[in-house]
Amino acid sequence: MEWRRALVEIGQFGGAEIAELFAVVRGIEGELEEGKVRQVLAGKVLANLFYEPSTRTSSSFYAAMVRQGGSVIPINDVTYSSVSKGETLADTVRTLACYADVIALRHPADDATLQASRVCPVPVINAGNGKGEHPTQALLDLYTMVRELKLEEAAELRGRVVAFVGDLLYGRTVHSLVKLLRLYSVKVVLVAPAALQLPYTLRQPDDVEMSLADALAVADVLYVTRVQQERLPVELQGELRGVGFAYRVGVAEMARAKPSMVLMHPLPRVGEIEVAVDGDARAAYFRQMRYGMVVRMGVLRGMVG
Amino acid sequence: MEWRRALVEIGQFGGAEIAELFAVVRGIEGELEEGKVRQVLAGKVLANLFYEPSTRTSSSFYAAMVRQGGSVIPINDVTYSSVSKGETLADTVRTLACYADVIALRHPADDATLQASRVCPVPVINAGNGKGEHPTQALLDLYTMVRELKLEEAAELRGRVVAFVGDLLYGRTVHSLVKLLRLYSVKVVLVAPAALQLPYTLRQPDDVEMSLADALAVADVLYVTRVQQERLPVELQGELRGVGFAYRVGVAEMARAKPSMVLMHPLPRVGEIEVAVDGDARAAYFRQMRYGMVVRMGVLRGMVG
Amino acid sequence: MEWRRALVEIGQFGGAEIAELFAVVRGIEGELEEGKVRQVLAGKVLANLFYEPSTRTSSSFYAAMVRQGGSVIPINDVTYSSVSKGETLADTVRTLACYADVIALRHPADDATLQASRVCPVPVINAGNGKGEHPTQALLDLYTMVRELKLEEAAELRGRVVAFVGDLLYGRTVHSLVKLLRLYSVKVVLVAPAALQLPYTLRQPDDVEMSLADALAVADVLYVTRVQQERLPVELQGELRGVGFAYRVGVAEMARAKPSMVLMHPLPRVGEIEVAVDGDARAAYFRQMRYGMVVRMGVLRGMVG
Repeated sequence: MEWRRALVEIGQFGGAEIAELFAVVRGIEGELEEGKVRQVLAGKVLANLFYEPSTRTSSSFYAAMVRQGGSVIPINDVTYSSVSKGETLADTVRTLACYADVIALRHPADDATLQASRVCPVPVINAGNGKGEHPTQALLDLYTMVRELKLEEAAELRGRVVAFVGDLLYGRTVHSLVKLLRLYSVKVVLVAPAALQLPYTLRQPDDVEMSLADALAVADVLYVTRVQQERLPVELQGELRGVGFAYRVGVAEMARAKPSMVLMHPLPRVGEIEVAVDGDARAAYFRQMRYGMVVRMGVLRGMVG
Repeated sequence: MEWRRALVEIGQFGGAEIAELFAVVRGIEGELEEGKVRQVLAGKVLANLFYEPSTRTSSSFYAAMVRQGGSVIPINDVTYSSVSKGETLADTVRTLACYADVIALRHPADDATLQASRVCPVPVINAGNGKGEHPTQALLDLYTMVRELKLEEAAELRGRVVAFVGDLLYGRTVHSLVKLLRLYSVKVVLVAPAALQLPYTLRQPDDVEMSLADALAVADVLYVTRVQQERLPVELQGELRGVGFAYRVGVAEMARAKPSMVLMHPLPRVGEIEVAVDGDARAAYFRQMRYGMVVRMGVLRGMVG
Repeated sequence: MEWRRALVEIGQFGGAEIAELFAVVRGIEGELEEGKVRQVLAGKVLANLFYEPSTRTSSSFYAAMVRQGGSVIPINDVTYSSVSKGETLADTVRTLACYADVIALRHPADDATLQASRVCPVPVINAGNGKGEHPTQALLDLYTMVRELKLEEAAELRGRVVAFVGDLLYGRTVHSLVKLLRLYSVKVVLVAPAALQLPYTLRQPDDVEMSLADALAVADVLYVTRVQQERLPVELQGELRGVGFAYRVGVAEMARAKPSMVLMHPLPRVGEIEVAVDGDARAAYFRQMRYGMVVRMGVLRGMVG
């Protein structure tokens, strides 16, 4: 399916789609710098339909819409409203499609956006679905790599070393991003405890498992993730509580990394990257948030602009 | 009271007011189709003051405001805020009137909007009050009938058969709508279990009680409602749990209805209309949602445009 | 620190800053009256980051932003979102600064805005911090006095009698306002039970404790506050439950006050001022709310306009 109709999963993007989207996003960056963002979404309405709270993602979409002249209906309390009266997701989505021009959907079910897209007459965006995909996160992560490594286009990522650190089993962010990076023959390095390694369905023969120390020596990008206690099976939660600390990046670790390395994290962090690292020029995670808004501006412009 | 000052109850509307409002609404439909909605509410602010959650109604007002250039202050969490500090509704409304140009009020008390209108220096709209009125719902329902029956004006409803199905005792939607339809000498058919029949205060001698099967044969409009468990007395909840299913409209029922019948439902539904019916051209309930936004655009334009 | 960079506490304002701000605010009042507010915040985004609910303050900032053409990201549910995943305030603020041009922060910690300002690349406003400051409340209170006493500028407050009534110990509103009034040699009168008197650190030798009856005879401004049960130590809550009533202002009290007296209250009230007083021309508390929005329009215009 064309992503402009429904952005369900990262697999909808090939190299051509990425190149086209990123060109638009780069242009929007320029508009922001000049303080003259084209108001191409004037009169358009986004419904932010969040069945799970996520200040970060909902605010990012919110800003992406209003900075282009559009409006946002913020729906963060769905569990208290119609839904608790027993309405199906399909009916809620069809109703909102009567009011809005595009819907961003955060939902605990892995296939929520796919289901919604089957009944929804307006474009719908997967803004994080269960333990499945979070495709705009993968797009913004890729865009961050391109910009922070000072590349002209994503194709230049070929041969670069991207090391993933932390929970690679449950982190949907990593899964969507790994799939996307496969388009560019990136060298993938995996730094995780055995119980939280990347699922085999997502692996390729060239992927290498390393210790954090070894990865620091070779990584062009170090992508650190949070160990999300709430996604772990109950029986693992006690055992793995300390895992984050064994994979923590601090000033000492940064000293052993390449001077040009890009340090990323989807945030929120809960100790995986020390605050003392924030001042390091290689710490890109807050710029990553900014790129996130800009990429979502591009996505919305593509869908309803 | 003039409805543009305070929209409290459907009784404020006579045939002339309806005709005038619907002419405006029809014009707005045209503006929407052309993609050129007049931004007559630019600089205006609506406060969506919802003491009870209602994603549907609050989103509808929200969209109705922003699509005409206005802004909305969404207040959906009142039970957690000032109100829990013991403030009266009157004080809250007078405070919001300092910030906003119009207030939409959803409240559990039947006379909330009436009370609010006595102290509020800006227009206030009843967006659903307790088990009392929900006048904009009645207006949008009437507008839906006019449009779906392809009438020029509401006066042409004379003699048409409108059948109400389900909970006619507790559904405030039905009560406001029945009152409104009395303006047009519509033939009212009632399809409900005895324990949930329309109150006698709302009835007229010509009204007829029928079975669903009989109603399907004669109805020009079939208006199906939800049996709202939460509004039933506790002692009735067990007994009536299955009632909805006895009044369910499915593909088989639609086969026995007129080819020109209009099937309506205020939504959310919880099984009263089968999903398989959605594809039937007579299923008007999602278009009804869209008309709802447009009617509220007209109401807001009339009040603060 | 320059308040336009971070509005942390009322101590950042001297007479010159006040005069400059109030001149801007007075101009905005004129724009509002003419219905032609300059849209100087078009394209700008405010993040309303409220860790404690406050419909009044968040709505006031919301309206202040959108009435000048800006947009607002309303974040009222932070306890349910990222924060519950363990993110620090600093990280949340830095993230929002990627999306928004200015942040209004309500937080239970007294030094929240100060801490936030140290990491936040965009202006941040203290919208009420714990039992500490609430500086925009003090500014709007001062502005209300100037306008209601029909003064040209705040400096003319010299020698006027401002009587504070109620809970002067825990009310952060009073604390910020008392500090601000010290700039103008106002005569401060304190009307409170011993257990709720103004802290000595905030007092000056000229301050006078009086009964409500005596204060009514001399006050140019009577500033009544709510006894906030939730801020009292548990052991005091029972004992002081009735205190509010001993300091209640009703029609009888107003009869003994100056004809020109200005009666203020930060609202919400829970009985300290009788509703019967609302019709008295000296009752300024709802106009105070309106001035509040206008003052915040001036603050936002100064910060990001």
